[in-house]
Amino acid sequence: MERIEQHACFGGSQEVWQHFSSTLDCDMRFGVYLPPQARQGACPVLYWLSGLTCTEQNFITKAGAQRYAAEHGIILVAPDTSPRGKDVADDEGYDLGQGAGFYINATVDPWSRHYQMHDYVVQELPALVDAHFQTTTARAISGHSMGGHGALVAALRNPGRYRSVSAFSPIVAPSQVPWGEKAFISYLGPDREAWRQWDATALIPAATERLPLLVDQGEADEFMASELRPDLLQAACAASGHPLELRMQSGYDHSYYFIASFIGDHIAHHAAALKA
Amino acid sequence: MERIEQHACFGGSQEVWQHFSSTLDCDMRFGVYLPPQARQGACPVLYWLSGLTCTEQNFITKAGAQRYAAEHGIILVAPDTSPRGKDVADDEGYDLGQGAGFYINATVDPWSRHYQMHDYVVQELPALVDAHFQTTTARAISGHSMGGHGALVAALRNPGRYRSVSAFSPIVAPSQVPWGEKAFISYLGPDREAWRQWDATALIPAATERLPLLVDQGEADEFMASELRPDLLQAACAASGHPLELRMQSGYDHSYYFIASFIGDHIAHHAAALKA
Repeated sequence: MERIEQHACFGGSQEVWQHFSSTLDCDMRFGVYLPPQARQGACPVLYWLSGLTCTEQNFITKAGAQRYAAEHGIILVAPDTSPRGKDVADDEGYDLGQGAGFYINATVDPWSRHYQMHDYVVQELPALVDAHFQTTTARAISGHSMGGHGALVAALRNPGRYRSVSAFSPIVAPSQVPWGEKAFISYLGPDREAWRQWDATALIPAATERLPLLVDQGEADEFMASELRPDLLQAACAASGHPLELRMQSGYDHSYYFIASFIGDHIAHHAAALKA
Repeated sequence: MERIEQHACFGGSQEVWQHFSSTLDCDMRFGVYLPPQARQGACPVLYWLSGLTCTEQNFITKAGAQRYAAEHGIILVAPDTSPRGKDVADDEGYDLGQGAGFYINATVDPWSRHYQMHDYVVQELPALVDAHFQTTTARAISGHSMGGHGALVAALRNPGRYRSVSAFSPIVAPSQVPWGEKAFISYLGPDREAWRQWDATALIPAATERLPLLVDQGEADEFMASELRPDLLQAACAASGHPLELRMQSGYDHSYYFIASFIGDHIAHHAAALKA
C-alpha cells in the first residue's frame, strides 16, 4: 500500500492511498482523513460512499467533512466508486461501468470479474484500514446518491457491522428506477428476484437489526422524483416499523453544496453512535 | 448579467454569474455566496482572489467558506483569475496568460488589451456587485498565492477602499521571484521600476493607511522558499513599522486543505472589521 497524497488539514492529515485490491483484481485508491486524535490513539471510522462519476477525490475536496471529523475524533475513509483500469470492463454511459459500481457484487460477464464493490467496501477495505491505521472496532457508513444506496444496503445486509448509517439523496429503490435498472440488468442479469438483495426498500422488511436510518433529501434535487424516490423509503419503513429520520431540505439540490451544508449533522449523528 | 448556477448552501445561495466586462473586453464569470442574512438586508462583501490555474470554481467548491460567511452574514465574491476566451492572448505555461492574470493592469502588447485585472477586481466588479446585490459599503479582500499577492496589492494601492485584508501563502515580492518575473516582464515589460507598483513589499514603505495584514503561510508549502518568500514581507513590514500578523502554520502545504483549515479565522477577522 502506497501513500500518494498527504496534506495537513484541520490539525490532522488528509491522505490518499493506492493498493492492489484482490477482491476487485485491480489497483484502487481511497482517501483517508486522520483527525488530530489519531496521533494519540485508536479512532472509530466513518466510511463514505460517493455517487455516480465520482472518484475518491470528490468527497475529500468538496464536502468540508474534515472540520467535523477533527472535532469528533473520527477517521473518514472514502473509496473510489468502481474498479478502475484499462483492463476493467467499462461502458460509455456515465451511469454504468467505471465510476458507477453501485456497491454490489456483479454476477454477469464481463462485469463479474472486477465489479465486486460490496465485498470491497464492506470487507477488504475495512480490513486494510484496520491493519494500517489505529482504529477501534466501531464503524459507521454514509454516502451520497448511488453511494447513499450503497451505505443503506451495506448496513441492511450486514447486521452488527456498523454502529450507524446515514445517506444524502440516496437511490433507495434501484430496482424501480432508470439508473438502478440499467446497472442491475447489466451487473446482475434480467432476473429481478436477484436484484432484491441489493435494494434498500426490498431489504427493510426482513431487517433484523433496525438500525435507525438518517436520510437528508434536497427538495430541489433534480433527480428526486425520477431516480431517488424518498417516498418509497418512507413507505417501506412505515410498513415495517423500521426507524427512519427523513429530513426534506427545502431548496437544496443534488450537489456537494447540499452535502457540505449538512455533513456536520451527519458526523455528529455518527459520532454519538460510534462513541456510545 | 446572467446567473448560470444557483445552489442552496448553508441556508444561503451559492451562485455563479456571467457578464461582459468592459474593463477586460470579454465575458467573465464570478462566484457569489449570498448568506441567509442577505435576504433580510444589505451585507458587507469579502472579495476572494484565487491563485494560478484557478477559475471562479476552485474557491467556491473547495474552501468551505460558506459556513463561516453564513455565520457572520458576509457576501463572498470570487472572480476568475484572468480574462478568458479564444480571442484573449494566452501562453502555454500555466503561469502566464489565461488563468494567470496576476491582478495587474498590463501595459505591453498583446496583453494590455484584455489583461486589466486590477481595475476589474477593484473597480468594475465591485460596482457590478453593488448594483445587483444588496451590499453595504464595507469591503474586505483576501486571496491565495497569486491571489494573495493580488489582495495585498489591491489594499495597498487603494487606501480607504477595504476595511481589512488577508492572504494565504501570498507571492509577497513578485519582482524578485520566478513566477512574478515571468509575468511582469510579459505584462509590464523589462523596466523593473514599473514593476514596483505591483509588488507588495515595494508598496509597503509608502503605504499611508497601514491596514493590518493577516497572512497565513504553511511551513510545508513547496513554493515557500522559491516563490512566496514570507521573509521578505516580514522584513518590509518590520522596516516600515507596517502592522503584520504572519502566522507560520506547521505542516501545511499550498493546497485548499490549508485554506479550508484557516478560512474560518480569516472570515472572523474580516467580519470584525466589516462590522466595526
